[in-house]
Amino acid sequence: MKLRLGMIGGGQGAFIGAVHRIASRIDDEYELVCGAFSSDPEKAKASGIALGLPADRSYTSYKELIEKEKQLPESERVQVISIVTPNHLHFEPAKLALENGFNVILDKPMTFSLAEAKELEKVVKASGKRFCLTHTYTGYPMVKEAKQLVKDGKLGAIRKIYVEYPQGWLSTFLEGSDQKQAAWRTDPGKSGIAGAMGDIGTHAFNLAEYISGLQVTKVCADINIVVEGRRLDDDGAVLLKFNNGSSGVLMASQIAAGDENNIKIRVYGEKGGIEWQQDIANTLLVKWQDRPAEIYRTGGGYVSSFAAHNTRTPAGHPEGYLEAFANLYRNFALSIKADMAGKPGDKESLDYPGIEEGVRGMAFVENVIASGKSDKKWTEFVI
Amino acid sequence: MKLRLGMIGGGQGAFIGAVHRIASRIDDEYELVCGAFSSDPEKAKASGIALGLPADRSYTSYKELIEKEKQLPESERVQVISIVTPNHLHFEPAKLALENGFNVILDKPMTFSLAEAKELEKVVKASGKRFCLTHTYTGYPMVKEAKQLVKDGKLGAIRKIYVEYPQGWLSTFLEGSDQKQAAWRTDPGKSGIAGAMGDIGTHAFNLAEYISGLQVTKVCADINIVVEGRRLDDDGAVLLKFNNGSSGVLMASQIAAGDENNIKIRVYGEKGGIEWQQDIANTLLVKWQDRPAEIYRTGGGYVSSFAAHNTRTPAGHPEGYLEAFANLYRNFALSIKADMAGKPGDKESLDYPGIEEGVRGMAFVENVIASGKSDKKWTEFVI
Amino acid sequence: MKLRLGMIGGGQGAFIGAVHRIASRIDDEYELVCGAFSSDPEKAKASGIALGLPADRSYTSYKELIEKEKQLPESERVQVISIVTPNHLHFEPAKLALENGFNVILDKPMTFSLAEAKELEKVVKASGKRFCLTHTYTGYPMVKEAKQLVKDGKLGAIRKIYVEYPQGWLSTFLEGSDQKQAAWRTDPGKSGIAGAMGDIGTHAFNLAEYISGLQVTKVCADINIVVEGRRLDDDGAVLLKFNNGSSGVLMASQIAAGDENNIKIRVYGEKGGIEWQQDIANTLLVKWQDRPAEIYRTGGGYVSSFAAHNTRTPAGHPEGYLEAFANLYRNFALSIKADMAGKPGDKESLDYPGIEEGVRGMAFVENVIASGKSDKKWTEFVI
Amino acid sequence: MKLRLGMIGGGQGAFIGAVHRIASRIDDEYELVCGAFSSDPEKAKASGIALGLPADRSYTSYKELIEKEKQLPESERVQVISIVTPNHLHFEPAKLALENGFNVILDKPMTFSLAEAKELEKVVKASGKRFCLTHTYTGYPMVKEAKQLVKDGKLGAIRKIYVEYPQGWLSTFLEGSDQKQAAWRTDPGKSGIAGAMGDIGTHAFNLAEYISGLQVTKVCADINIVVEGRRLDDDGAVLLKFNNGSSGVLMASQIAAGDENNIKIRVYGEKGGIEWQQDIANTLLVKWQDRPAEIYRTGGGYVSSFAAHNTRTPAGHPEGYLEAFANLYRNFALSIKADMAGKPGDKESLDYPGIEEGVRGMAFVENVIASGKSDKKWTEFVI
Repeated sequence: MKLRLGMIGGGQGAFIGAVHRIASRIDDEYELVCGAFSSDPEKAKASGIALGLPADRSYTSYKELIEKEKQLPESERVQVISIVTPNHLHFEPAKLALENGFNVILDKPMTFSLAEAKELEKVVKASGKRFCLTHTYTGYPMVKEAKQLVKDGKLGAIRKIYVEYPQGWLSTFLEGSDQKQAAWRTDPGKSGIAGAMGDIGTHAFNLAEYISGLQVTKVCADINIVVEGRRLDDDGAVLLKFNNGSSGVLMASQIAAGDENNIKIRVYGEKGGIEWQQDIANTLLVKWQDRPAEIYRTGGGYVSSFAAHNTRTPAGHPEGYLEAFANLYRNFALSIKADMAGKPGDKESLDYPGIEEGVRGMAFVENVIASGKSDKKWTEFVI
Repeated sequence: MKLRLGMIGGGQGAFIGAVHRIASRIDDEYELVCGAFSSDPEKAKASGIALGLPADRSYTSYKELIEKEKQLPESERVQVISIVTPNHLHFEPAKLALENGFNVILDKPMTFSLAEAKELEKVVKASGKRFCLTHTYTGYPMVKEAKQLVKDGKLGAIRKIYVEYPQGWLSTFLEGSDQKQAAWRTDPGKSGIAGAMGDIGTHAFNLAEYISGLQVTKVCADINIVVEGRRLDDDGAVLLKFNNGSSGVLMASQIAAGDENNIKIRVYGEKGGIEWQQDIANTLLVKWQDRPAEIYRTGGGYVSSFAAHNTRTPAGHPEGYLEAFANLYRNFALSIKADMAGKPGDKESLDYPGIEEGVRGMAFVENVIASGKSDKKWTEFVI
Repeated sequence: MKLRLGMIGGGQGAFIGAVHRIASRIDDEYELVCGAFSSDPEKAKASGIALGLPADRSYTSYKELIEKEKQLPESERVQVISIVTPNHLHFEPAKLALENGFNVILDKPMTFSLAEAKELEKVVKASGKRFCLTHTYTGYPMVKEAKQLVKDGKLGAIRKIYVEYPQGWLSTFLEGSDQKQAAWRTDPGKSGIAGAMGDIGTHAFNLAEYISGLQVTKVCADINIVVEGRRLDDDGAVLLKFNNGSSGVLMASQIAAGDENNIKIRVYGEKGGIEWQQDIANTLLVKWQDRPAEIYRTGGGYVSSFAAHNTRTPAGHPEGYLEAFANLYRNFALSIKADMAGKPGDKESLDYPGIEEGVRGMAFVENVIASGKSDKKWTEFVI
Repeated sequence: MKLRLGMIGGGQGAFIGAVHRIASRIDDEYELVCGAFSSDPEKAKASGIALGLPADRSYTSYKELIEKEKQLPESERVQVISIVTPNHLHFEPAKLALENGFNVILDKPMTFSLAEAKELEKVVKASGKRFCLTHTYTGYPMVKEAKQLVKDGKLGAIRKIYVEYPQGWLSTFLEGSDQKQAAWRTDPGKSGIAGAMGDIGTHAFNLAEYISGLQVTKVCADINIVVEGRRLDDDGAVLLKFNNGSSGVLMASQIAAGDENNIKIRVYGEKGGIEWQQDIANTLLVKWQDRPAEIYRTGGGYVSSFAAHNTRTPAGHPEGYLEAFANLYRNFALSIKADMAGKPGDKESLDYPGIEEGVRGMAFVENVIASGKSDKKWTEFVI
């Protein structure tokens, strides 16, 4: 049985919408049944039809989608709504969807502001519906393995975290050309108060907290606009303090010329350290003080149930970004199906990013942007 | 518009069937409408239903599938049939499907014997239908880029090829346990005359001919059964001569303990060499005699139309084995759709492995096994 | 003709003394003629004799060495004195040696304090003798190549620098055992006000300034003592501002469990970035925005005269840490010989770290330790 | 106490002579006291003087060197003679040196022919002097570690060996220009019957036998001259059978355009495999069937006494080709000193390549060249 999926945003010309749709198809847990793919009604309709949807479920606005779907018989009605619009168009449709009884998958960063995020948290809790925030990188099997190694105490107490996300694609004033992705990401009216920190800094932040199981308590940020004419930060670095007293460094840049998307994290404990990076996503390097470093691999017979659950192919047949994304979709579906069956859901499926991660992510954005403007070194991480 | 897909083999417990289904879904070009998923009628039916197919299109045999589907109206009838059975069950269903007007996707090695392969070639040609053989590795964007660099003469005349496929999974007598994958692959009644050479040697052979654009003309093979009790080769190495006078080495092993699936190829020309391996599939190393080596990357703005066409994500968001597989499915669908539209098909889509590659692959199997038994050093590569 | 070399410190049980001696021998530019190898007179004498020196030039103190050597005929007298003692024993012997007309090679960090460093700068300038500070990593050919690429404007204006030096060897309270290296490095009476920041942070700082050609103008430091009972910092991270307005991050840690000595730097300009790390020291990765990244290699025919001058073996025969160290010794010797010949010295040989780098290094130590204690975010980098 | 070293060959313009001299200096076990650096008497004399030797020990021929040195008092007389001439000038000076009571270090391949090699073996045995053949790669600590892991049975019985040495430097007709290295290596009058197989094939062969502890018993070779006009093989591949029944592949090429000197070996046993390559010489990858692969590192606290003995720097400060070479020199010196002290020598020092390796290397050359010309697949490896 497939879950019925609807999509808001992600029409022709969008990047992430197509990624969501592929992710939803890989494990055959969803069927796309409707969408409102653009804020431009005509484009929205055309996109739906181009995607093979019937005209009457190719809606012209998210409001129409939710209203009309609600009137359909329960057996036909959409069950999960994916929202893949720019940041300023996250909150309203997510709220409306949840309040009308739909499960929601939402692209990150969660909202336009922390205030919206906290409001959405209330909505999610009141709704009783499931909510997933697409922090894709936590979907990689070796990221899950890293989390388990830390959780199981294999590294001892965590002492240091380095996390980085260097990109080079905004090295020029790309928003001056007709590049849609660059345009909204550098527009304060669409992205919010942060550029790079919101777009990729939140990923790095989430990855650090996810793997370490720790929470950031203080930040000290250097936030920069490097490319002339740009309106939002395109580069930054943040010194971090965590709730166990350890420290860390987060680097995010979109002007690291020549770099692609090699998000990377290193976590060090008393006994050893782990290292993971997207470029070699199927490998987790586990380094020890007194013995040879080990190479954990996706598909290895020795990995945890969390890594194994999120793997489709034998070791050495690499899985990538789309499969990591698909893991979020699949786990969300399995959790909803467990709900529908009145079952508790297995712990591996329940391990997907949700509303709490979203609130913390938006708090990260607001805290680091504030810190960037402050003369004070350390500022408390407040929510 | 999606193509209607049927599947023969690949029921519960199979590995490659699931991979084919994922590959067929990724780009939304297919809809699975029917299947005969096992040679065991009950298991076949149950598998179909478990996959969400209606009972009446969950057939109990491939013959039933073809017969019944043929009676359906053209607008409902299956259009493409994927055959994912063990080798000894390739020829008959493929032949029947083609003769009844269905396009066929077939798992490699193509047939049980070269004789069957040549027979199937005739059937394909007579049928006027499209045929795809799933040599997955040629679906990787950076493999396609390598082919184009060679074709464009960037390396000069090709002089040397090293291709290798080392696996370790058959290091023990796994077929003595209840391991289904090991069981049929080491069974001469199901795999044919070759083990490792058929299963992975054919991939290496195909990759070498695909990238270089050359054809093997002579072989000198060392074929071994390393694990005691095994009935088919689990290891081998082949010296190669190509039709431009150059030479090569092909290594395939299933007893390379600790190795996964890191198929790797190096092709050297007069001016430089290329190097690709599955472990870092999104990278193509291009080495030059007189200047720094270059790192070509999936998603790079500078790549050929063949690489770009087969890519979904921006550089640095790795695509893997399933996407390479999906490229075969997608290109096959686009080619069929072009046929249906009476158009010639674009060259990028038409670039998928077909019947010729299948015949050459089976010739490879028979030639190297014969060479392995021969006292003579070089034997002509005959078809 | 070999230069006559003397050594202060580096007797039995020391690590870096042996490294200096190997470095001095590799290119046959020096002959070790005397030494005062320990502050313990007996051990000093024994060490000299064990190293094959005559008893009468195995001195019991640095004062004796300088005094007695000065009395020797010029043709026998030591010409270059290497000082490889712990930090608190750098200044006095260096000063005395310079004032008595000897060229000096000094281990880093240069002195016990910035005040000493500035005093030593005066001494060096007044002496008219040559002075080398062993910032080893700048001796690597690919580090020199990186500097030239930046200098030649290949990357455009520099925008971002990441430099890191993670070690794990002080993850435990090693100074509690009998480990000599750990003991003095964690002792404020011997190392000065900094531990990790002095020992390895200065290397990272020097590497960043050397390659970029920029100077740090502001710092914001997080300085930590992680291991209980330790008296000096064993971990830290520093946000940096450079004199062209760009920013950077410096990370140095001795509690990065499982890490060895993989000092690494990334420098990004408008058009591309470079990446170098000691683990793959013969490779310089040069990344571009619009074309494939390039792999520059030690020994490559295309490298600058600075890289070529500092290379002994053909590409692919790796040179390592000892050769990088030897490059400092060799260049220092060639510069002295040019002086002796009344020639200006070639630019490749003159490219070794000296007194200015030493003063800036000690300023780095004092600035970051002060910043670490400050509530203010940015502090000016003062000398 | 340093051993007194003399050198035959290796004068101005030579490559390997300088490498030998550096190697001899690194560990301070030798003092260069005399030489006959060229077959051109004037050049020989000038080279010696340029190297700082006195004129009366800068001999004009190897015969003069041996004759005159023999007449010197034992306390001054050369003790070890390094011979670094082209292949055709190995046997005579080595024989003369040994017969006159000098220990000999000889460059590889050992002689011009197998007959000479066997003759030299007799001379060595009769002489009672020590003899070292500079198979440099066996001097790497991680190569020694690999040997120990195999010897200790960690991998179980060995089943497969892949060894390769791809170079690109002879991709063009370099001998047509004035390149001295290319000229003699491609000249049958100087190199013997083999080009690439003698120059680098012997290294690969030696490495395989050294690490595995096995001996080749049969070969099947494809030997090629790729570059037009060349007189000796510049490319080849050899199928191997070992004396425990296992098989292997050896690849050596000098027309692998873009490749440097990345000699690489993989050895697989029943339980796992090891992988080493010169490009990352300080790393030994140890792969297991049932658990994560391990990264052994030069300087790691867990390595064998053989690896530790051959290491000078802490883990992560890379040692390279010159240090590997120096290990041969150092171990040879330590063994001679043990002889002089009437002691047995420690097993780590005694582990250097000698006359047996040389004979087997020359047998390799003659066997593979013969096999290359044979129509028969397998030929016995005869000595």
